[in-house]
Order: sequence, then structure tokens, then C-alpha cells
Amino acid sequence: MQLGQVIGRVTATRKDERLVGTKLLVAQPIRLDGSLTGEPVIAVDTVGAGIGERVIYVMGSMAARALPETGAPVDAAIVGIIDTLDSLN
Amino acid sequence: MQLGQVIGRVTATRKDERLVGTKLLVAQPIRLDGSLTGEPVIAVDTVGAGIGERVIYVMGSMAARALPETGAPVDAAIVGIIDTLDSLN
Amino acid sequence: MQLGQVIGRVTATRKDERLVGTKLLVAQPIRLDGSLTGEPVIAVDTVGAGIGERVIYVMGSMAARALPETGAPVDAAIVGIIDTLDSLN
Amino acid sequence: MQLGQVIGRVTATRKDERLVGTKLLVAQPIRLDGSLTGEPVIAVDTVGAGIGERVIYVMGSMAARALPETGAPVDAAIVGIIDTLDSLN
Amino acid sequence: MQLGQVIGRVTATRKDERLVGTKLLVAQPIRLDGSLTGEPVIAVDTVGAGIGERVIYVMGSMAARALPETGAPVDAAIVGIIDTLDSLN
Repeated sequence: MQLGQVIGRVTATRKDERLVGTKLLVAQPIRLDGSLTGEPVIAVDTVGAGIGERVIYVMGSMAARALPETGAPVDAAIVGIIDTLDSLN
Repeated sequence: MQLGQVIGRVTATRKDERLVGTKLLVAQPIRLDGSLTGEPVIAVDTVGAGIGERVIYVMGSMAARALPETGAPVDAAIVGIIDTLDSLN
Repeated sequence: MQLGQVIGRVTATRKDERLVGTKLLVAQPIRLDGSLTGEPVIAVDTVGAGIGERVIYVMGSMAARALPETGAPVDAAIVGIIDTLDSLN
Repeated sequence: MQLGQVIGRVTATRKDERLVGTKLLVAQPIRLDGSLTGEPVIAVDTVGAGIGERVIYVMGSMAARALPETGAPVDAAIVGIIDTLDSLN
Repeated sequence: MQLGQVIGRVTATRKDERLVGTKLLVAQPIRLDGSLTGEPVIAVDTVGAGIGERVIYVMGSMAARALPETGAPVDAAIVGIIDTLDSLN
């Protein structure tokens, strides 16, 4: 899974009908110190995440497991909200 | 899923027969501010997207879910057209 | 899927027996203007592609769909030969 | 699989219920000489790894195989602890 | 699949029990001219590859197909040893 921060939200009226009712957030990878890195993805929120929160998100086919099984074409899902990030040092 | 913009279209006469009749668009990742980034992919359009539109596309095996189940070898599909992109700030 | 150009061919005598008889080409990603980018992959040819041709290739588990179902361990397959690439501008 | 070093740990109270009870570690890719590279991922520990240890981790849908089959949305799992890394030279 | 060179070997006493008995090699991507590029991965050897050899390796869930079906959590496997690499020019 990826460490990320929710940096935005997407709305889309025209979309696959199995995505209707999903909350689509934009998450960007972060490093252990919380700084942003990499490129943002659109992830379906399954845990009530909000803008600015640090989250855990799953990518690829396993992301679909986080949703009710509707056959939705989903490759990224937020599955946790980070409380603490403890680093090596 | 990825934030992208449709930047082109591909035609291919010789192709896997299960791709016949699909619309193959070229989508390039974009950032929250709409600027282009990363490398383009070829994605099957399932929502009537047009050149220049900002879209949501799915990658990997989940992309095949966006199409009628024909067993087509597809790893990217456009599944939504973005209305608004709201950022953190 | 990826936009690519066939830049080489691989021969391998010792290989998984389910790959025997496959044509293994080296494809490198290209941009819309046809220039090479990224890193090459080895893809099974399923459409009769030749050296120098611009092609569409699928990556990941969906690539296996392009082949007869033999259970071959394949993660990239050429599924189309590009006739035209129309860009935004 | 990836060569990595465990560099941190994540706690998340609000998460997918199938992740409850899993140990979520942060692993960063390493090179053969042990130096850190690339971007960290969150991986479920299945072998009792600790902070600072060099590990083998699996990514993508195959990572879920390392866990008891609960349908958990998991795309990275630590499946081994490296004893020795022998290089070419 | 990827073009790679075997650059090392990993031993791990503590590991997923379904990995016991597998040979874990470190493969690094190469370009058509044989020069090293990208980041190394740990791949299960299924064809008797040795240190220094140029190989074909599969990544993702398809890699598991290269092994006997034990449900092992594997996302990379060496499936061929390259005899010749013919390039465009």
C-alpha cells in the first residue's frame, strides 16, 4: 500500500454506472516525513477520509476488494487513515 | 485511477479481434492544476470522451471490467469525464 | 495499453515450455510524435508485427488474454499495429 | 519481489476491518549494496520483521497470497527476511 | 517481460513456507546493448539461470504461473535465458 495525503476531490457526472455513489479523492504519495512525492492518483474512499488527511491506499486489482462487490472498474482505494508514522531514527 | 487528458486517438486495422469496435484514445496524466505529466497510455473509451477532455482512467486488470466481458486484452480504460477538480488549497 | 515501436527480437532456447513457439519482440514506448521514451519490454507478438513497426501492447495479467489459453507466464503482448496516431493539435 | 529495508511502522485506527490485527510496516527499496532507493511502501508483515531489517516483499495481487484468505485489500506483503545478499562481483 | 541480467542471489531462512526450496535471484533490467538500467528485483528462477546470465523475467501475478501451483506469493520469475538480442539497426 502507499502512504498518501488527500489533496483533492474529483466530481464526474458522466462515468461508469458502477462508480455512481463512490467518493473519488485525489491522493498523493508522501514520504515518512510527510512531504509530498510522486504523482497523484484518484482513489475511491472507503473509510471516510477528508481533505488533508494522511491515508493508506491500495492500488491495482486488490483495490476492488475494498468496495462492495459490484464489479466496479476500480484500481485505487483508500483503506485506512494514518494515526502515527514511526520512523527508524 | 489516474487523472488524465485525452490528447490523441489511435487507429489500428490489424489488431486483436476482440478490440474491433473499441475506440482507442491516448490519455496523458495531468496534475491537479491540469498540467500534463508522465507518459501517455492508450485507453479504451467507455464513456464517450473526446479530444481535450479531462478524464478518469483505470489501469491494469480492473480496466477490463469497464468493457462488456469479451475477454479482450485491455489494460487501460476511460471510465469517467471530470467535471471539477477541487484541490486542497 | 502502451504506444510502442518494435526495436528488436529475442531468442531463448532455454525457456518455460509454454513459451515455445511464441515470437518474442522488444518494444519500446513512444510518444505521440513517435520519439522513443522509457524502457523496453519483451512482448509476445500476436498480430504479426515486424521490426520498426509502431504497435499497441498490453501489460500485466491482461496480456495473457491475447494468447491461446495455455497458462503461459506472459505479462506483455503486442495486440495491434498502429495505422495512424492523431494528436490534439 | 523487491529488496527492501524496514524503515518505519504505521498505525491506523480507522481502517478496512479486514486489516485489523495486521502489522503494517514501511519498507523502502534497497540496492544490492544495501543503500536506500526509490519510494517507500506500506507492507503487511507476515514473517515477524523488525525495524531496520532487510526484507523481501511482494507487490500487487500476489501479496494477498501471503495472508490468510480473508479478502483483505492488500497489495504489498513482507514474505522473507534476508540473510545474505550475494552480488556478481 | 523484462530483459535482465542476473546480478546476485538472496538467501532467506525466515520466509513464507511456500518459498522454501525456491532459488531467489536478483535481476536488473538491461537495455538492448546489454547495459544495466532501472532497479533490481528478486525473481524466482525457473530455468536454471546463473549469475551474469541475461534472462527474460515476468512480473506481477503472471509470474506465479511459472511455478508449480502452490499458492506461493511470488511477483517475479525468470522464465528464459537469452541467446541473442537482435536490435533494429
